[in-house]
Amino acid sequence: MHILNLIQQRKSGEPISDEQMQWLVSAVVAGEVPDYQLATMLTVMCYEKLTVPETVSMTGAFVASGDSLSWDGIARPVVDKHSTGGVGDKVTLGLAPLVASAGLAMPKMSGRGLGHTGGTIDKLESIPGFRTALGMDEFRCILSTVGCAIAGQTAHLVPADKIFYAMRDATDNVRELGLVAASVMSKKIAAGAPHIVLDVKCGSGAFFLDEQEARAFARLAMDIGAPLGRKVACVITDMDQPLGRAVGNRIEVLEILRLLEGSADYPDLREVIVALGSVELVLAERFGDTETAAEYLNGLIDNGDVKSKFREWVRAQGGQLSRLPADESELQGVHHVSLLAETSGVVSGMDCAEIGNAARRCGAGRLEQDDIIVQDAGLVCNVSIGDHVEAGVELFRLYIGNEQMEEQEEILAELREAIQFNKGEDVPARRTVIDILLP
Amino acid sequence: MHILNLIQQRKSGEPISDEQMQWLVSAVVAGEVPDYQLATMLTVMCYEKLTVPETVSMTGAFVASGDSLSWDGIARPVVDKHSTGGVGDKVTLGLAPLVASAGLAMPKMSGRGLGHTGGTIDKLESIPGFRTALGMDEFRCILSTVGCAIAGQTAHLVPADKIFYAMRDATDNVRELGLVAASVMSKKIAAGAPHIVLDVKCGSGAFFLDEQEARAFARLAMDIGAPLGRKVACVITDMDQPLGRAVGNRIEVLEILRLLEGSADYPDLREVIVALGSVELVLAERFGDTETAAEYLNGLIDNGDVKSKFREWVRAQGGQLSRLPADESELQGVHHVSLLAETSGVVSGMDCAEIGNAARRCGAGRLEQDDIIVQDAGLVCNVSIGDHVEAGVELFRLYIGNEQMEEQEEILAELREAIQFNKGEDVPARRTVIDILLP
Repeated sequence: MHILNLIQQRKSGEPISDEQMQWLVSAVVAGEVPDYQLATMLTVMCYEKLTVPETVSMTGAFVASGDSLSWDGIARPVVDKHSTGGVGDKVTLGLAPLVASAGLAMPKMSGRGLGHTGGTIDKLESIPGFRTALGMDEFRCILSTVGCAIAGQTAHLVPADKIFYAMRDATDNVRELGLVAASVMSKKIAAGAPHIVLDVKCGSGAFFLDEQEARAFARLAMDIGAPLGRKVACVITDMDQPLGRAVGNRIEVLEILRLLEGSADYPDLREVIVALGSVELVLAERFGDTETAAEYLNGLIDNGDVKSKFREWVRAQGGQLSRLPADESELQGVHHVSLLAETSGVVSGMDCAEIGNAARRCGAGRLEQDDIIVQDAGLVCNVSIGDHVEAGVELFRLYIGNEQMEEQEEILAELREAIQFNKGEDVPARRTVIDILLP
Repeated sequence: MHILNLIQQRKSGEPISDEQMQWLVSAVVAGEVPDYQLATMLTVMCYEKLTVPETVSMTGAFVASGDSLSWDGIARPVVDKHSTGGVGDKVTLGLAPLVASAGLAMPKMSGRGLGHTGGTIDKLESIPGFRTALGMDEFRCILSTVGCAIAGQTAHLVPADKIFYAMRDATDNVRELGLVAASVMSKKIAAGAPHIVLDVKCGSGAFFLDEQEARAFARLAMDIGAPLGRKVACVITDMDQPLGRAVGNRIEVLEILRLLEGSADYPDLREVIVALGSVELVLAERFGDTETAAEYLNGLIDNGDVKSKFREWVRAQGGQLSRLPADESELQGVHHVSLLAETSGVVSGMDCAEIGNAARRCGAGRLEQDDIIVQDAGLVCNVSIGDHVEAGVELFRLYIGNEQMEEQEEILAELREAIQFNKGEDVPARRTVIDILLP
């Protein structure tokens, strides 16, 4: 087999067989395929579009390229969750203790933030003492006893995806749905949970800009799961505005704490967390439908179980919630800056990616992998699409790192551009959970 | 400017500007573009198709990447010729002395054979003493005095094309018409002649398998020539069977000699040579139409002028025709093998590329750039499409090199497969010159 023949074959419209895909992925991982031929093959795949069987083959070959985790011996039903990435997306921080409270086990390998989206590991590390580098024995122990555990991705899962992704990134080949799905699903499958829920976000702050593309991805991910032995469900959620209010790291943890303590300020965030949790309960066959499961989960939040579980979990991973600031007024090493509404009107739209970028520029995120973040930095968005706003009202409260203060004016200008108003006509509020797709 | 932005731009359907193309080509030549990004850009260009202005820009940027020749000071009108490649294509050997006899000057940089097609330099070097590595002073001197001169391509013309071509070859991106045209035309433009005729071949032995693709290429080449200051004409010719009879090197020289001595055995070859010559005379404004020019050129062949010019030219480049074998019976270091017709019938088709491959396997050509050829090796095809053939007639006479004799049975089997017969129904003979396209 030779890569040039595979390129010719795929160009001519003939799909790549399972055996060929295994060969291709192995050869790439073994360093036997020159960069320029891998780049060509990926570009051809973007133009020709991968078929579902090809995507299944690629996912399987990616999984086979490295280690896979197994949760045999964990007594609870094991579930996993993935988000396609958003702004203010602290869902995992609430979902993990929620489903743990409900009797499931959620072992999760998470990543760090890059670009306009944050990462769960950065958020957790903003809790003093929280350890995200866990050995497998400790990880399993916490998972068994608490019901959830979250750690940084280990180096041995899906090495093929790292190579393919780096090449896609360097050649503008990141958007083909099959390649995206193989990348996402291989990591989830290698992570070992039999039940997987995907939070597929769409809108100006998401990878998928429109609902149609998000739905196509969701269907593909579900199609891949079944032949590879996984039950996969998807929740399509809106990302045209930040989820909840805080966009950063430590301020997102404070928001989750308030939500679990009963605050009614974050209905959109709570809706997404509960929707994902209810889907996991249905996948694990604890409930027959998501409505009943959601009712049960809302009860667990309201009676304080989830808050207790959150504290138990954080403690198990070494985190000391008592050392967190009581509220945003106690944040350290950041300047508090307000952006006020210049005129009155109704919020008619937001450029959510730009809001994420503004938070990153405040110090909350990274442009490059090895940039250093400011844990207390970020911003809080006080308005939602559809809100009637008076001139002078605070739209955003920014927490800008010391070193980032020289960018203050640019950040404010960026934020001003990122929010649109009309003269006062009503605009419907966004639906946060757009659809739930069960297998 | 960054290559990744150009890739994104071209993918989105927005053409690359002249300035951007100049930057791209310069950056590639300077080694500033990673291989995988050049590969991606070429693949994108193959899918998106280059526009005519982009192709003109690429051609111009290729020319600018190296030296250009100038024929200022040559008193005769200067013409150049290019063939898209064929089997038994010894046209240049006859065309150069023909147009020189007619008062034009034809300076030509030629290449060596590769794969199933031969190269003019290999054919000339089969004449004992013929020198194809000429210094520029000697080259100009021969051109001025004789009217034609042919040398191997120098290293300094169009270095960008070498890099782009090698990458296209390594990534299955050789067939996009714009990339092909930029490659061909940049070399012709850098070679300096103001008048250029292209022999665009189509059929089973040609790069362009069908007439439609050949015509599209011809139109594009003519469209490129005008804005870059060249008068370009094209002759579309058939390559569904070998041109003339001999396919090799020394045996092709013997065939040209016989043609120039008045043999009527090669009407197809003579027709192509005269057609190309007549177009060159029209481009150089020596004649108003190709019919009158062709009549004039046929006269030059018939009265022996061209034969004398051929001898003068070969002598000027050091060649000693007297040391050539008088005919094929005197060929050295090759085994004479006949392939006979097994049954009677009419020749209904040929796989001309396979015939070229068979000649290569006899020792006449190369699979890799540095393979060594056998100058006397090759084959002679005794039949044409449309011929009625009796069982036992010799279809091919092969001249197989000593080292190649172990492949004899495979070569014969390949040739048997390469010629199709019907039971006896008439098949029209092929038209050799399909069309002439003047600017």
